[in-house]
Amino acid sequence: MSNSISILGLGLMGQALAGSLLDAGHQVTVWNRSAGKGDDLVARGATRAATVAEAVAASPLVIVCVLDYAAVRALLTDVPLTGRVLVNLTNGRPSEARETAELVAGRGGDYLDGGIMAVPQMIGHPGALILYSGSQTAFDGHRDTLATMAEPRFVGADPGLAPLLDLAMLTGMYGQIAGVLEAVALVASEKVPVAEFTSTLLVPWLNAMASTMPQLAEEIAAGDYSTDVSNLEINRVGVANLVLAFEEQGVKPDLLLPMKAIIDQRVARGHGAEGLQSLIEELR
Amino acid sequence: MSNSISILGLGLMGQALAGSLLDAGHQVTVWNRSAGKGDDLVARGATRAATVAEAVAASPLVIVCVLDYAAVRALLTDVPLTGRVLVNLTNGRPSEARETAELVAGRGGDYLDGGIMAVPQMIGHPGALILYSGSQTAFDGHRDTLATMAEPRFVGADPGLAPLLDLAMLTGMYGQIAGVLEAVALVASEKVPVAEFTSTLLVPWLNAMASTMPQLAEEIAAGDYSTDVSNLEINRVGVANLVLAFEEQGVKPDLLLPMKAIIDQRVARGHGAEGLQSLIEELR
Repeated sequence: MSNSISILGLGLMGQALAGSLLDAGHQVTVWNRSAGKGDDLVARGATRAATVAEAVAASPLVIVCVLDYAAVRALLTDVPLTGRVLVNLTNGRPSEARETAELVAGRGGDYLDGGIMAVPQMIGHPGALILYSGSQTAFDGHRDTLATMAEPRFVGADPGLAPLLDLAMLTGMYGQIAGVLEAVALVASEKVPVAEFTSTLLVPWLNAMASTMPQLAEEIAAGDYSTDVSNLEINRVGVANLVLAFEEQGVKPDLLLPMKAIIDQRVARGHGAEGLQSLIEELR
Repeated sequence: MSNSISILGLGLMGQALAGSLLDAGHQVTVWNRSAGKGDDLVARGATRAATVAEAVAASPLVIVCVLDYAAVRALLTDVPLTGRVLVNLTNGRPSEARETAELVAGRGGDYLDGGIMAVPQMIGHPGALILYSGSQTAFDGHRDTLATMAEPRFVGADPGLAPLLDLAMLTGMYGQIAGVLEAVALVASEKVPVAEFTSTLLVPWLNAMASTMPQLAEEIAAGDYSTDVSNLEINRVGVANLVLAFEEQGVKPDLLLPMKAIIDQRVARGHGAEGLQSLIEELR
């Protein structure tokens, strides 16, 4: 089954998306603001559009992947979208997705916002995931085509949901990387082989801890802050000791300090007997 | 094979350690500073010692699990340790482990320091791990007995290594939990079911990211700060957008802010084209 798709924006990600659609035998029209990108795609069978309007006119499904939402709005100025599904895979915030959905609806188009949980190299391969939110009709109508690029998962009718969940997953990733960087820096202070430590000890431990996170989330959802494992007072003492160890080893504990501060604050407010999940109250 | 083991300290962890040894049929002698603990263990066959010296005299293998290293030093005052292996499973820092090893050697004892990577409920069950460092002879001689409590792993002759790796793994855990808490708080700002988000999206994503961490550690070990995925300049823009999204959603990004600060700092120093692994330079 071959469909016609237009891609606006040929950065690394846009090129990967277009390439995966070409590989699957779709008709692909490409456009990029600056010249000199997409030659390779044209050589593989893509059609180059001279203008955004020309690209939008060429296909019922239009995928946008540019720098930011300001760029999305700028390139859609004065472009009619009647009968078109606009799939916006640009990185942005929930508020921006909602604004863009309104803009597209005002032009007669159907809107899907997407959050790409993959690097360009993963597009078209197993493991790549794209979250979509907005028009369920548009999603259902193009699911098979979207599946060419990455596993498509619809997360709700509010167009802000895909960017929200995307940003939340990135947040989790940054926390994990911060912890790994500090752990590796601490271990490296004694010339321990850090790669072996990471693969044989740290990663299995992180995976074991990650497996307990759904329970932590359930407790948060239920407002259940009790614990039979380790309460905040125990964690307060443990983290203080950890920070002291960093100082003794000559490593900066900077990425850990707000976790220390928030635990100290929660205990100071009289919640020392609660579990780590109760820290969520300090973020609200 | 039944061996004789003494346990000093009957907090939750000490009780779990003693219980697992009793379950395996070992002769266990217990001691606790304050009365009223260990009745259950005595009912299960343990012998109660009236003093530390009595407990140490009762067994060639003496396990200590108390509040902190100051307590370890206090309870060993004037206790002869000749012919004894002291296994210190108290939480502490590398410097404290080394000091305690010297103290024990001065009393004629052999020393192992240990880091317990488990909660009390896991002791004696698969998945529990204890890291040991110090006397390889002591470890090899008692490996089977130690295996009763948790998988024993010897990490080096420097007694500071087990607490170092223990603290590094806890560091990674705190980073991961910080990220999960922020992620859940962000998602909860829109009344998305947080437990489902955590189990179906966040945890699989964290596991996928964790699987790339050994490569990150290898690059750090090699001083290779290049990237073909996403450089620090891209991450700088992404994290700034993330922090803005937190503000728009009314959630405090406090646990993420030092990650933003360190990325901004690294880029400002001219390293925007490098990968996230180069952030380690800012922690040294």
